[in-house]
Amino acid sequence: MEGRRMRLDNARLADGRHVDVMVEGGRIAAIAPHAGGGGGMDLGGRLLLPALVDGHVHLDKTLMGMPWRPNSGAATVRERIENERRYRRGLAHPVPRRAAALLRRMIANGTTALRTHVDIDDDIGLENFHAVRAVAERFRGEVDIQIVAFPQSGILGRPGVAELLDAALAEGADLVGGLDPASYDGDAKAHLDVVFALAGRHGRGIDIHLHDRDAGGNAQLRDIAARAGAAGMAGLVTVSHAFSLGTPDAADFAATADALAAAGVAILTSSPSAGPVPPVQALRARGVAIYAGSDNIRDLWSPFGNGCMLERALLISLRQGFRADDDIALAYGICSDAGARMLGLPGRAVAVGAPADLLAVAAETLAEAVAERPAGRLVFRAGRLLARDGAYLGNN
Amino acid sequence: MEGRRMRLDNARLADGRHVDVMVEGGRIAAIAPHAGGGGGMDLGGRLLLPALVDGHVHLDKTLMGMPWRPNSGAATVRERIENERRYRRGLAHPVPRRAAALLRRMIANGTTALRTHVDIDDDIGLENFHAVRAVAERFRGEVDIQIVAFPQSGILGRPGVAELLDAALAEGADLVGGLDPASYDGDAKAHLDVVFALAGRHGRGIDIHLHDRDAGGNAQLRDIAARAGAAGMAGLVTVSHAFSLGTPDAADFAATADALAAAGVAILTSSPSAGPVPPVQALRARGVAIYAGSDNIRDLWSPFGNGCMLERALLISLRQGFRADDDIALAYGICSDAGARMLGLPGRAVAVGAPADLLAVAAETLAEAVAERPAGRLVFRAGRLLARDGAYLGNN
Repeated sequence: MEGRRMRLDNARLADGRHVDVMVEGGRIAAIAPHAGGGGGMDLGGRLLLPALVDGHVHLDKTLMGMPWRPNSGAATVRERIENERRYRRGLAHPVPRRAAALLRRMIANGTTALRTHVDIDDDIGLENFHAVRAVAERFRGEVDIQIVAFPQSGILGRPGVAELLDAALAEGADLVGGLDPASYDGDAKAHLDVVFALAGRHGRGIDIHLHDRDAGGNAQLRDIAARAGAAGMAGLVTVSHAFSLGTPDAADFAATADALAAAGVAILTSSPSAGPVPPVQALRARGVAIYAGSDNIRDLWSPFGNGCMLERALLISLRQGFRADDDIALAYGICSDAGARMLGLPGRAVAVGAPADLLAVAAETLAEAVAERPAGRLVFRAGRLLARDGAYLGNN
Repeated sequence: MEGRRMRLDNARLADGRHVDVMVEGGRIAAIAPHAGGGGGMDLGGRLLLPALVDGHVHLDKTLMGMPWRPNSGAATVRERIENERRYRRGLAHPVPRRAAALLRRMIANGTTALRTHVDIDDDIGLENFHAVRAVAERFRGEVDIQIVAFPQSGILGRPGVAELLDAALAEGADLVGGLDPASYDGDAKAHLDVVFALAGRHGRGIDIHLHDRDAGGNAQLRDIAARAGAAGMAGLVTVSHAFSLGTPDAADFAATADALAAAGVAILTSSPSAGPVPPVQALRARGVAIYAGSDNIRDLWSPFGNGCMLERALLISLRQGFRADDDIALAYGICSDAGARMLGLPGRAVAVGAPADLLAVAAETLAEAVAERPAGRLVFRAGRLLARDGAYLGNN
């Protein structure tokens, strides 16, 4: 399969060229002007884009595939955590069924790589981790899945969680997570000591949830940057959400962004519509890597989300005030190529040598694709057609 | 046609009832438990909702149906106005063609009533007004269209515009508009003097664009409220956008909201993702009427927008932090019933006596309909099927 040659005919590229694309060994082997000879799959002039990458999901949390469940969450992170601990064991569908339903949908929407955080705590133990790992194994070959061992209920106040994270990493979790070191766990230094020690012991990356705003959040970002720099972990540490970077304090922002850039610490954003968010262009201008993810998708935290990173590119554009085509292309890029690179995968492009993970949509330009989010999509994974017009065609 | 009787069988209501709906004379004549006898149109268990109302569009501005045009706008309202004046006359398609393309799409998405602002200025004169009025006439019977005579380039600095607005009202424009009386036109009192005089002379309503933020914007809102109160125009005056109500100054907010409520001045919001927005629940709690609209839809101001008020309900929910089903229902309500009432139309509901302007979607609950925005939609206007699965079935 991987070695098979195939051709995608009659595609439009984002730069306007009208081409045929040769695929071999799962990669783009050649791109030639459209010849009209046929023989390959006819894309009918659809716009061909690099497939999407979701840098932050919670496969174990989703309620996808279940009957509608009214949101019972509350206003704060702490209350939402308690709400989830109260209800998650009584859900009608088990994790593998819900996670698989979401994966099918994400693939149908054009995503072929993702990073998922998986709750590990004193109540659920490694149960969700094992379930998601098994689902990821089933979907191997269709979507690249990185798993973060995520202490959703904290570390310091939950006896045994540090040991569970250690066990998950020993069993192959790709990264270790963290959660609001100061505001939730109450001791930023002690929390980060544990997280960085686990990463160092297992030689893994780090991805920390940080919801704190303003100076308190930025101080933690600089602490994380200092630790990442000292540990030589450039490119291996992400801070997710990092709302504090949306601070109006320009000097605090600049100092924090410069520290992140110097240490090679990346920022993951879903660019939510409410509250402060990291400013994408200002961070990139200071050399900070930024990529995007869905975050919660129809779960006990949020009733919204649909696993569509093309829609995420629109929401990012709306939130960041992007209107020009180049800016909209940047929004798409952080939902695709930038995410692939941060996940340690080959960069995404419609170019010779790039993986044939591709998305074809009925749109004239990339900006129009983001604005319209056409339902008619062809999704290719290593050259294999994996979804058509919203229908998942894979093996799961 | 209007007097014809028909039946919609096998519908789910938002309260969970499974019903058949009898329509007569364009209105809902009866709602009975689903009998299974057939004879009507089978809705297949779809959720039946009141059709959508778009309280603020710009039919003359849209580029819908044209090839993609990269946005060439700039950062400020003033620059965007200049950008539009520079390019609008050179657009490939004329107003009627673009406006009709958008109307077909809005109807297919579930909208059967709307208010459109139409540019009237020293350059375009009444040209766009006449074009949109003719299009509205063509679509009569399919969608209720209110026209605001809108001085997009201001009044005070543009000789002849006040007279053009007067002429448009004399020719039947439904409302007179206004634009940033202080920051754009430079003299809030003089601008509002003209607008309220025109409204009084013609006995029409008012809908003023106000982009100004913070105390300066709120001072103008209180001035508008005072004038509306003095003129006895409760229910006839809207301020669109009113970003200043998103102020962090709680006292200024409360004083302004109370003034609006006392005078019966309503707020129209698209609840954009960037910048301050009117807080929907806080305004309603103080008695202020609020309804929603799309604002720009793929035009020289914004490349985004698709004329889907179900998507607008999602964007409002995301921006306002709504997660509970009741809050999401409120978001839908300001995109439907609240808009109808502000447009002087009968209230929208799936209830006996209400207009049979209805939207049927494959969703279990109203909240799920907002979260998912299903593409499979049936749109009824006075009981007539006007769109199916995104395809417009009307006469235009």
